[in-house]
Amino acid sequence: MTDTTGRNSGTAGPGSGTTGRSGRGRGRPRREEAGDTRDRILTAAREEFSERGYEKTSVRGIAKAAGVDSALVHHYFGTKEQVFEAAIEVAFAPALSASHMIADAPLEGVGERLTRFFFGIWENPTTRTPLLAIVRSAVNNDTAAAVFRRLVASQLLRRLAGRLEQPDAELTAELAAAQLVGCAMLRYVIRLEPLASADVEQIIARVAPAVQRHLAGP
Amino acid sequence: MTDTTGRNSGTAGPGSGTTGRSGRGRGRPRREEAGDTRDRILTAAREEFSERGYEKTSVRGIAKAAGVDSALVHHYFGTKEQVFEAAIEVAFAPALSASHMIADAPLEGVGERLTRFFFGIWENPTTRTPLLAIVRSAVNNDTAAAVFRRLVASQLLRRLAGRLEQPDAELTAELAAAQLVGCAMLRYVIRLEPLASADVEQIIARVAPAVQRHLAGP
Repeated sequence: MTDTTGRNSGTAGPGSGTTGRSGRGRGRPRREEAGDTRDRILTAAREEFSERGYEKTSVRGIAKAAGVDSALVHHYFGTKEQVFEAAIEVAFAPALSASHMIADAPLEGVGERLTRFFFGIWENPTTRTPLLAIVRSAVNNDTAAAVFRRLVASQLLRRLAGRLEQPDAELTAELAAAQLVGCAMLRYVIRLEPLASADVEQIIARVAPAVQRHLAGP
Repeated sequence: MTDTTGRNSGTAGPGSGTTGRSGRGRGRPRREEAGDTRDRILTAAREEFSERGYEKTSVRGIAKAAGVDSALVHHYFGTKEQVFEAAIEVAFAPALSASHMIADAPLEGVGERLTRFFFGIWENPTTRTPLLAIVRSAVNNDTAAAVFRRLVASQLLRRLAGRLEQPDAELTAELAAAQLVGCAMLRYVIRLEPLASADVEQIIARVAPAVQRHLAGP
């Protein structure tokens, strides 16, 4: 998620759009085009990882789906593992801002806030796709599982655990997360009925108190 | 799990062991050998499905691992889906007897019994392998997910739900199951620490009350 529109980007600024106009429409600046290409690769990567899982997805396949050369994918992101991490990070970006919200707010309504946030990103098709990609990949591949552990554990759960005043805070945060992860598995991945078709508000109403009791006791 | 030792098995009975003795040791009756072969195929199938997941596993690969011809796998089990169902059924056999136990016992300790049973089959390497096979396969393949839904939903959760006296009994049973499924995902599949290395008794002590509250209220 590196932002390349800083002040030092003189070589790609709007005033430097004198080269390479052919085939790129009406002389659109390179830095915007680079951003577009990057986004297109990320979108393609999310779809490929989501549909095929980590192992069966190749950088070549992502490049093909994005309509670019494989070398460009490597140029922007590096290895397949790094493409994967970048592709799924978008699903965690809101989670990270939410974790601030959770850390700053009183523990009283934390179960409700966390549960509502969790189902919010799963119900939203834009974030559901990378989440499915994470689950499908992490279950079958150690590298993808490591990325999941890194993002979820160190960035989200540890922050939540830091908020809890008890000896087993990290384990507690994980057991609360387990309730949510299990719901996502049965509702969105396995599609077990009646959970898969139940109204999401009904589920939140039932699950939030369970998460709350894990985090803040009865 | 068809039992072929009925009274009509004249062609394979102990008294008919006059053909094909060569290469089969000391004239062991065919029906026992058939049982051995069947078990060997099931063991190979569980290992293949567990390591590769449903999609990447082939009947040919299972046959090779079991040291038999593919035709024999088809003869005993039918399609790949049917081999899969037979291979993972062993993990559910104890679950089904447990579901009787759960259905007959008072609701008072159901959370503890269910949680202890669940972690029991996950901690046991013999049953963990087919469970990992189910999870890895069901997450990535619709056919495998359907087998999971059939076994878990109709045979286990619905029986548990029948025991509960409330309008949303099936949803309730699934939300309780979600707590357990999420724990299995984070502990055994993703291996998130500290949950992955925590003492199982410590986990049961924390999770059983959560399952109990789902099923029987506070």
